[in-house]
Amino acid sequence: MEKRELLYEGKAKRIYATDDQNVVWAEYKDFATALNGEKKEEIAGKGVLTNGITSLLFLKLHEAGIPSHFIKQISDTEQLIKKVTIIPLEVVTRNIVAGSLSKRLGAEEGQPLKQPIVEFYYKDDALGDPLLTEAHIQELDLATEEEVQLLKQKALDVNTVLSSLFAEIGVRLIDFKLEFGKLADGEIILADEISPDTCRLWDAETEEKLDKDIFRRNLGNLVNGYQTIYSKLGGRQYV
Amino acid sequence: MEKRELLYEGKAKRIYATDDQNVVWAEYKDFATALNGEKKEEIAGKGVLTNGITSLLFLKLHEAGIPSHFIKQISDTEQLIKKVTIIPLEVVTRNIVAGSLSKRLGAEEGQPLKQPIVEFYYKDDALGDPLLTEAHIQELDLATEEEVQLLKQKALDVNTVLSSLFAEIGVRLIDFKLEFGKLADGEIILADEISPDTCRLWDAETEEKLDKDIFRRNLGNLVNGYQTIYSKLGGRQYV
Ligand SMILES: Nc1ncnc2c1ncn2[C@@H]1O[C@H](COP(=O)(O)OP(=O)(O)O)[C@@H](O)[C@H]1O
Ligand SMILES: Nc1ncnc2c1ncn2[C@@H]1O[C@H](COP(=O)(O)OP(=O)(O)O)[C@@H](O)[C@H]1O
Ligand SMILES: [Mg+2]
Ligand SMILES: [Mg+2]
Repeated sequence: MEKRELLYEGKAKRIYATDDQNVVWAEYKDFATALNGEKKEEIAGKGVLTNGITSLLFLKLHEAGIPSHFIKQISDTEQLIKKVTIIPLEVVTRNIVAGSLSKRLGAEEGQPLKQPIVEFYYKDDALGDPLLTEAHIQELDLATEEEVQLLKQKALDVNTVLSSLFAEIGVRLIDFKLEFGKLADGEIILADEISPDTCRLWDAETEEKLDKDIFRRNLGNLVNGYQTIYSKLGGRQYV
Repeated sequence: MEKRELLYEGKAKRIYATDDQNVVWAEYKDFATALNGEKKEEIAGKGVLTNGITSLLFLKLHEAGIPSHFIKQISDTEQLIKKVTIIPLEVVTRNIVAGSLSKRLGAEEGQPLKQPIVEFYYKDDALGDPLLTEAHIQELDLATEEEVQLLKQKALDVNTVLSSLFAEIGVRLIDFKLEFGKLADGEIILADEISPDTCRLWDAETEEKLDKDIFRRNLGNLVNGYQTIYSKLGGRQYV
């Protein structure tokens, strides 16, 4: 597989074309952003951890029967993935109240939800990634009603697999964001990344935060938390 | 009917008990607030117009087969209404993009929606009346799934009646907010008010704003717009 031109550079990854038009080459960056881009910083050692963790989690999901864009990890910071057209929705699944949900509901962080909640945010930095209802999604033609139901079901399936995977290693999956995309034939599959950049992960005993909230809330160097997650999942030591 | 003690005072109305425990006495105030209470002002002549318009619209809805808490207007600024336990949801119905929806969707004000959209906001000043999805409403136990469907249908029914009522007098109903409440027997009925304080109303020809946006956006004295609406509806001249 040959790496070709840069297709786009996001906040956390660079996506390159390859000699296969159905495959792209993702490079995970040493860069963190938060508060809709207001806070940003280069953080050495982040890319190897987000790439390592994402690769491992997509493999576990595959084993559990949940397909994704992931093909294979090709280096510490790189992976090959199936090229998709991203659906511009951030699909957020929550088990425990945290972050913006705490403010929206006036509920304490850490309070368990009666049942998992799936939310949709419009993936649009200029608009600040606003919450959307299903009626908004229809108005914007972002997904059909059937597709919204499918995304919700897939998100809940991922939640079931990842919640028990993390529980086994003493970590609570508080919430997480997924992105989905369409393959050339129109099939919708799980895409983007699943890492402490996109999940809230708390140590089940100490409630220590092991995710990007370390960076958002200035609680220390996030690579330590990310390494803890990677090590618990069986990954190698980088930090 | 006897007026008894003040039960609560809101931003736009005072609600008093009466000698009938199922009936309360509403007094419309000469007071406007916007931007979640940041902007506020006493505005002489507002109460007679919001009371007059609300009374007239609830009567029209009655005639169209849509019941509400409204019993009768008893003075320029007062009405008798059935006492309900308010469901803390602001039920917003939209026909045309305006206000917060314009920011949320990145769409121009004035753009017609493909179909009317019903949104639910948490009626909680301290939280800033945030948008809620149905999952949030279930989590907070604000209404059951069936009740949410009922509220949506009632809001759309009100929209049908009011949109054509306003169209007949050369006014476009852009969007509006309703509140619903439960009677002692659990029945859900339309409550609160329907006035230019709670609707966006544009002159169909000139697009002139005839609602609270006059106040929110410092476009002049809102009583002139409210009087225009009241006069077109057949109400008397106050201004
Ligand atoms: N399989 C894929 N095919 C094409 N684009 C993808 C795929 N997976 C993720 N992307 C997109 O790659 C871009 C770069 O990722 P990232 O740096 O996380 O961007 P962002 O700044 O939008 O969060 C994003 O727009 C993301 O949606
Ligand atoms: N039929 C009713 N019975 C009891 N309370 C009502 C009824 N209709 C409206 N209310 C409530 O009366 C209060 C006063 O109204 P308002 O001044 O508009 O308050 P707010 O500042 O909350 O907008 C509000 O809490 C409103 O929900
Ligand atoms: Mg991203
Ligand atoms: Mg009110």
